[in-house]
Amino acid sequence: MKTDKLLYGVAYYDEYMPYDRIEKDMEMIAKAGMNVIRIAESTWSTWEPQEGVFDFTHLRRMLDASKKYGISVIIGTPTYAVPTWLVKKCPEILALTHDGQELYGHRQNMDITNPVYLHHAEIMIRKLMEYVKDEPHIIGYQLDNETKSYDTCTPYAQAKFAEYIKGQFPDIEDFNHEFGLDYWSNRINAWEDFPDVRGTINQSLAAEYCKFQRKLVTDFLTWQSDIITEYKRPEQFITHNFDFEWHDYSFGLQPEADQYAAAKCVTVAGGDIYHPSQDDLTGKEITCCGNILRGLKNNGNYFILETEAQGNQAWLPYPGQLRLQAYSHIANGSNCVMYWHWHSIHNAIESYWKGVLSHDLAENETYRECVSIGNDWKRIGSHLNNLKKTNKIAIVANNEALTGLIQFPARTKDAYGYNRVLRRLADTLMELNIEYDIIPADEDLLTGYDCIILPAFYSAKESYLKALDSYVQNGGNLITAYKSAFSDEYLKIYSDTQPHILNKTLGIHYDQFTYPNKVTVTYNGKTSEAAEWMEMVCCDTAKPLAQYEHHTWGRYTAVAFNTYGKGHTLYLATLLDTSILKELLTGFFKECQLKESAKLPFEAAYPVAVKQGVNDDGHHILYFLNYSKDTQTARNLAGTATELLTEKKIASGESITLGAWEVAILEFDN
Amino acid sequence: MKTDKLLYGVAYYDEYMPYDRIEKDMEMIAKAGMNVIRIAESTWSTWEPQEGVFDFTHLRRMLDASKKYGISVIIGTPTYAVPTWLVKKCPEILALTHDGQELYGHRQNMDITNPVYLHHAEIMIRKLMEYVKDEPHIIGYQLDNETKSYDTCTPYAQAKFAEYIKGQFPDIEDFNHEFGLDYWSNRINAWEDFPDVRGTINQSLAAEYCKFQRKLVTDFLTWQSDIITEYKRPEQFITHNFDFEWHDYSFGLQPEADQYAAAKCVTVAGGDIYHPSQDDLTGKEITCCGNILRGLKNNGNYFILETEAQGNQAWLPYPGQLRLQAYSHIANGSNCVMYWHWHSIHNAIESYWKGVLSHDLAENETYRECVSIGNDWKRIGSHLNNLKKTNKIAIVANNEALTGLIQFPARTKDAYGYNRVLRRLADTLMELNIEYDIIPADEDLLTGYDCIILPAFYSAKESYLKALDSYVQNGGNLITAYKSAFSDEYLKIYSDTQPHILNKTLGIHYDQFTYPNKVTVTYNGKTSEAAEWMEMVCCDTAKPLAQYEHHTWGRYTAVAFNTYGKGHTLYLATLLDTSILKELLTGFFKECQLKESAKLPFEAAYPVAVKQGVNDDGHHILYFLNYSKDTQTARNLAGTATELLTEKKIASGESITLGAWEVAILEFDN
Amino acid sequence: MKTDKLLYGVAYYDEYMPYDRIEKDMEMIAKAGMNVIRIAESTWSTWEPQEGVFDFTHLRRMLDASKKYGISVIIGTPTYAVPTWLVKKCPEILALTHDGQELYGHRQNMDITNPVYLHHAEIMIRKLMEYVKDEPHIIGYQLDNETKSYDTCTPYAQAKFAEYIKGQFPDIEDFNHEFGLDYWSNRINAWEDFPDVRGTINQSLAAEYCKFQRKLVTDFLTWQSDIITEYKRPEQFITHNFDFEWHDYSFGLQPEADQYAAAKCVTVAGGDIYHPSQDDLTGKEITCCGNILRGLKNNGNYFILETEAQGNQAWLPYPGQLRLQAYSHIANGSNCVMYWHWHSIHNAIESYWKGVLSHDLAENETYRECVSIGNDWKRIGSHLNNLKKTNKIAIVANNEALTGLIQFPARTKDAYGYNRVLRRLADTLMELNIEYDIIPADEDLLTGYDCIILPAFYSAKESYLKALDSYVQNGGNLITAYKSAFSDEYLKIYSDTQPHILNKTLGIHYDQFTYPNKVTVTYNGKTSEAAEWMEMVCCDTAKPLAQYEHHTWGRYTAVAFNTYGKGHTLYLATLLDTSILKELLTGFFKECQLKESAKLPFEAAYPVAVKQGVNDDGHHILYFLNYSKDTQTARNLAGTATELLTEKKIASGESITLGAWEVAILEFDN
Repeated sequence: MKTDKLLYGVAYYDEYMPYDRIEKDMEMIAKAGMNVIRIAESTWSTWEPQEGVFDFTHLRRMLDASKKYGISVIIGTPTYAVPTWLVKKCPEILALTHDGQELYGHRQNMDITNPVYLHHAEIMIRKLMEYVKDEPHIIGYQLDNETKSYDTCTPYAQAKFAEYIKGQFPDIEDFNHEFGLDYWSNRINAWEDFPDVRGTINQSLAAEYCKFQRKLVTDFLTWQSDIITEYKRPEQFITHNFDFEWHDYSFGLQPEADQYAAAKCVTVAGGDIYHPSQDDLTGKEITCCGNILRGLKNNGNYFILETEAQGNQAWLPYPGQLRLQAYSHIANGSNCVMYWHWHSIHNAIESYWKGVLSHDLAENETYRECVSIGNDWKRIGSHLNNLKKTNKIAIVANNEALTGLIQFPARTKDAYGYNRVLRRLADTLMELNIEYDIIPADEDLLTGYDCIILPAFYSAKESYLKALDSYVQNGGNLITAYKSAFSDEYLKIYSDTQPHILNKTLGIHYDQFTYPNKVTVTYNGKTSEAAEWMEMVCCDTAKPLAQYEHHTWGRYTAVAFNTYGKGHTLYLATLLDTSILKELLTGFFKECQLKESAKLPFEAAYPVAVKQGVNDDGHHILYFLNYSKDTQTARNLAGTATELLTEKKIASGESITLGAWEVAILEFDN
Repeated sequence: MKTDKLLYGVAYYDEYMPYDRIEKDMEMIAKAGMNVIRIAESTWSTWEPQEGVFDFTHLRRMLDASKKYGISVIIGTPTYAVPTWLVKKCPEILALTHDGQELYGHRQNMDITNPVYLHHAEIMIRKLMEYVKDEPHIIGYQLDNETKSYDTCTPYAQAKFAEYIKGQFPDIEDFNHEFGLDYWSNRINAWEDFPDVRGTINQSLAAEYCKFQRKLVTDFLTWQSDIITEYKRPEQFITHNFDFEWHDYSFGLQPEADQYAAAKCVTVAGGDIYHPSQDDLTGKEITCCGNILRGLKNNGNYFILETEAQGNQAWLPYPGQLRLQAYSHIANGSNCVMYWHWHSIHNAIESYWKGVLSHDLAENETYRECVSIGNDWKRIGSHLNNLKKTNKIAIVANNEALTGLIQFPARTKDAYGYNRVLRRLADTLMELNIEYDIIPADEDLLTGYDCIILPAFYSAKESYLKALDSYVQNGGNLITAYKSAFSDEYLKIYSDTQPHILNKTLGIHYDQFTYPNKVTVTYNGKTSEAAEWMEMVCCDTAKPLAQYEHHTWGRYTAVAFNTYGKGHTLYLATLLDTSILKELLTGFFKECQLKESAKLPFEAAYPVAVKQGVNDDGHHILYFLNYSKDTQTARNLAGTATELLTEKKIASGESITLGAWEVAILEFDN
Repeated sequence: MKTDKLLYGVAYYDEYMPYDRIEKDMEMIAKAGMNVIRIAESTWSTWEPQEGVFDFTHLRRMLDASKKYGISVIIGTPTYAVPTWLVKKCPEILALTHDGQELYGHRQNMDITNPVYLHHAEIMIRKLMEYVKDEPHIIGYQLDNETKSYDTCTPYAQAKFAEYIKGQFPDIEDFNHEFGLDYWSNRINAWEDFPDVRGTINQSLAAEYCKFQRKLVTDFLTWQSDIITEYKRPEQFITHNFDFEWHDYSFGLQPEADQYAAAKCVTVAGGDIYHPSQDDLTGKEITCCGNILRGLKNNGNYFILETEAQGNQAWLPYPGQLRLQAYSHIANGSNCVMYWHWHSIHNAIESYWKGVLSHDLAENETYRECVSIGNDWKRIGSHLNNLKKTNKIAIVANNEALTGLIQFPARTKDAYGYNRVLRRLADTLMELNIEYDIIPADEDLLTGYDCIILPAFYSAKESYLKALDSYVQNGGNLITAYKSAFSDEYLKIYSDTQPHILNKTLGIHYDQFTYPNKVTVTYNGKTSEAAEWMEMVCCDTAKPLAQYEHHTWGRYTAVAFNTYGKGHTLYLATLLDTSILKELLTGFFKECQLKESAKLPFEAAYPVAVKQGVNDDGHHILYFLNYSKDTQTARNLAGTATELLTEKKIASGESITLGAWEVAILEFDN
């Protein structure tokens, strides 16, 4: 979604303040050049202290004070944390999960299929909307927050699941066959016999339950969106705060929601990216998660509704890092940077998830860096807003494949299989300074790209595999990795030559695999350990680029290149290091004669990252972002430009020096 | 049990196939020289899809197709996985365990004392037996599979336990005294007060509950055996698939069944051995577990009813390994090798526990190695079948001692204490190329052996200790380790000089012990760290072979040799490495003038293992098995022989070269 | 409490004996010079085998036999382990905790607020007291044992908690505000809505529940004390066996009891100290825990009611260690050393927590060492008894701060934050051979000390902070560490300059902090890694003693010294090693001109520890304790003395040689 300016702001909670500070806070927010606050989310028990009793005092205060200081407002529905009286009234609202019965306390612990919960949530939302709908400076609404199914496995949810299965498989025999339920006597011979799915050892059933849970999320958000739509003005947006796989920071596709489906009910994709900092600030999480967000609404500009200010204890930013982060988001296509949250909280679980202000609520280093960012954006923001990006390489993100690799992991038995491979490939692109999109497994999207990268695409519909095959035949280029195209959409392993359908496209086949032990792979002088998985690949039409180096497995291929129709493919039969992947991808892009392999309009080597796009005025914008504490140099080769921060002219061929964590923004003369 | 030929085959499940392949599969099985399939186990929900509704379609297909291809059949009762309708009807069938209430899904989750379960299981077994009893090519029956009590702690099972205790201790005071229940106010002053045993901190009670649970297994299998016996023909065998302590592979005595008691109800002992592969294929697991199986029916030939084909991801065999494994089993006294399972499964938890065929159901490397094994056995199997082994050294395996070391572990707090010591001693024998039996703690079995090896024999009846004392006095030789003879059969620690009774036999005593820290032991130039446990042994009549090397504990003995009556003993007061144990055992056998210390009829050093026996024709058979990827040499010193695979003559004194993972089989002229 | 002699003895249980040994045991106890046994604790099921049926047979036997051998008796109430019949009668007696429902079996598993439990416990105590009250050789009573709340979270206990909160916050709005319950919709808008506290994510609430649970302990012990007081004779003492934070050994303040409050109801503080042994015997645990005990009754002499004899498997003492340990306790102010327990137990969970005697119940090395100690004490005990210690340095131990650091830990996410810092400082003092007190956070106690050491004093009342400020202003010296004075007594973080109030006292402030990564700190030639936490300290009036060594954080201060009023402060903004702390403390004491920095009346370097005091006759007593296996030398500079064990005269200036683990005791001529 386009916006009329860059949004810069914070989440704000008058109700959490230790004493009345609202005037002081709004004044400080405005002074920092911030222009938006996000409020109201998660405070149901304040708005409705007892059933049917509503109290919008704090809301009023925030609306009035923000209006006074010219600050726009995003209103979040407060539904993801339930009040105590509601749980007292109806304890079954708390979800039953694989880990047992939820207790009251943390957020996101309810059964989102529970009708009593939905009934009261609807009353709350409507009361709130009635109260705020005419406020002029509210620019949009956020539905709930980081919505998931919270693993609801209540009898109520499970009954819905049986219906959902029955809807797909009217004949119970087809269900038993497709899911392989004969195994270990797990057949369900009558719908009434449906057992508690929490105990299943059938991964097809477990994965389908995950898919069903993701559908609950989509249904829930759509339901909220429909309610909001009844009240909102046309110019107001609806968004949601989407999040990512959580590794104690954000990275990769969120396993517990189908964000592509869910995003249909919002106007603009929003999200929260939390990432390592200090010596570990790399820009890679911001880029990958941002690319996912940009893909949720068709390469549209997106909102960073939450990101770290001081963040948790390990993340206190070095001087310059907060600034670099803000520009990283904008350079990636975000139109908005908002911090979680304004002040540091004085009680409860997020007391050490620090905001812009510290607990003393005074100006500090972090606030001062915000002031410099916000005031620069007042000056140059119109050059940066609505950045249009046009990438020709896309990585496919897919929940079914991700769930498949959780159910049937490679060697490492965690939940990160799919995103591990995705990350290895995404980081390689980032280190090559090649920008990429992230897209869903949608056949219609393929043709827009010169190269499609499929991480371990374990669970794959036949129709999509056929589309990939056509794509390559017609000149597309495909990079894919081990375990791809191995099972169908219900996690039933394909019973013919693997990889299913793609074996012809890739020019290879295999029927055995193992974990690598002391196996290496060498290409172009770089050697990598083979990790996680190795397939005993035989090349049919493909050309082996590297064999396994091992006393016994040397006759099998680790990396294969194929020419197929007018296109090309690269197959990675094991997990390799970024260093060798850089060689392999560079070689592949060259062989495919991709634009990315041509001479680029800059000279910059990562940790200086380059991000580009076209602004509202049609000017080419190029960012140099120095993700390091050391001084770096980068060189402009794209013509005459103005460095927007310094307002200096940069000639073509001229070098720029970047200090620790520094950014330079080149706007080119057209 | 003797068989008329070597059995070679697979577990087969028509009901799991993604499409109709039964003709193709049977043809391929027959082509591989396989002659037996095992079917029907674990498929209750297919045979009885609803209560009282029976459908034997798949069974019929398998019986017909196997008959057509001349393949024999073993029928397994399907009772270890319950159908969904039965759990729907009676949820209490699912066991309550130390970990809480079982959910439906995995196998082996039921309360085997539940009368509703037993009622329906009996109906299922009888229906099945009526259906199959006249099929001519069924050669035998398998009772259930890897039966255990699944830790059933239901109120029903616990009431039976209270009765069981009362049966042993009519006077509740005796029970309180023997179990030491005064401690921490745990007295049970009336049978009605019996508390939930799951919370006990009294190891005597916990261990007795384990013993009771093992008895449930024996009772259950005996009950099944009695039913089968009503139907089976005299020439048909009854077997069970016994398994072993699970370390992600099989090793050592199974803690959750008393296999010696349970084996009384079968005709022939069967078992499944899964073991590491690739660089970790050592033959040690096959040997130790096979020796346990051979001991279950008095040194009888046994069946490997399941072992890995491709196995799990880490176990894909190197070329030659599947072959070496098959011969390892046969050389150890098995008459049968069957793979789990024919094909790789396309859904559910064992999708990556791969069979002979991969998921594409086509010929592959593994299948081709099976073909070579199966067809060789057609040619030479009659020379190998019913191998009679006569070992003079036995290791004692005992469930009570094993449970004792789970309840009162040495330093490492896992479940493997007893088998850890057993393995150290068993591996030492294997590396010395000395074959051994594994026997129960049965007084009557002692006299058959020159040397008895007792691993950490923690829980020991007085009568058995006295028998051991007599055995040594009368010329037997005894090797035993720390913690032996420390408590009685109820885990009450003996309150006189330790080791109880054996202190005289061993010529030592001790009253203190600790964990070793930086303590070493040296013997014959080999130094080992002392691990796990160290007793402060004082020698009475014994001769110290090694003292502890430590700044303070040096005055105590680590290894003691004693001459007692006509026999000898070796006491190991700490856990030592295999390298020093090889020196100690070699020295001990020499001192005792055991046959094993005499010049052996071969020259071969492990990783070339030697296994011997006498075949049906009375010929001496000697195997050389190369458990390594490197070429090795071994030398025949036992007279003129024929190498059966190559049909070459081997003169006495002649050397044989063995390639990677290769086997040679010498049949000696008589 | 003063005693007329050193008490030396064991816990004794006639009821646990495998056979009748009471005469033999008492004879051996007496022969060892022991003069006291502790009996009756934890044996409720023996005294009251069925409801209302009492049987004191074993008690009678112990009373009679001990009397015969001149051995005094301490009677423990048996209430911390409930009989089976009581749980059968009323299963709700077993606590519901954060981990779920307790099962019968282990001790300390009951809800100490349950009225049925309290009813029966009172009957038991009164019956016992009636039975024993006239026995002349009973010298005192122990209330229960190591009492805690056992995390009771029953509905009964939680209802009491809601009342307790209401008592503090009559206006529920004040409660919501102080606890910050607006956050994540956790408001409690009516007392009836109080949710199950077990699920809370509000650390203020969680911490207050911990405080409430500690209060339950105080209430329970006071209730028992009141009952005992009805029966006991004036000369009989009441004690309790207090324990410490458990790290598989004892160290630091016990988190689950407020021992300062609870100790009000006893005559003399008792406790149990278990500590590492062999190469890890350092005296540090004995010193720190003993100092806590001494502080419970105002620097009074205390009782070691339990300590290890042989202890667990890792702790078998080296020769001389048991002796060194006994003197370490006495030198620290204990008047009593009693072993847990007399004999090693033959069944159940503490079978390997070995007593004086081993399982064979015969004389052993440990017993023989007891004999030497006991008989020495008969000879010289009157010189050692009632040692009066006068320390001028005190460490503050505080449960609220400790709970605060459990709720909001530094980097290491365990429960040991507060005690980790306390230990680092306490060990530093011990290695400097400076004795210290441990005191509660009581304003009235400050003035007695030259120097107060506050470990990470996270949760701090304003009044105490103000008192500390005055203390320094008036000439006191204060050492404190990171995270101190950060939140109030309800874990609400202070919203002004940190450290709250103390920022002036310390002459510093900070508003940001992080985890240290590759950060070092150097002082006086010693370099330490910064660990756990680092605050970005700016010095106002303070003088930085060391800055962080790091590429970015170098402008902030790690250690700051301040002169404030007539006093001085030292602030540690990160966790440093003992080696650098020794330099810092030595420097600080010198700067403050503390007595401890003056020339000491001995030359001895740790591992030779020095402990001093004044005995009943007013003589100065000085111990040299060699905590090492190596021979050490120490030198007397305090005048002419007698070494009490050898009865040798030691001139001033004379050196003493101490063998492995040896002790020397100098009594100085006055």
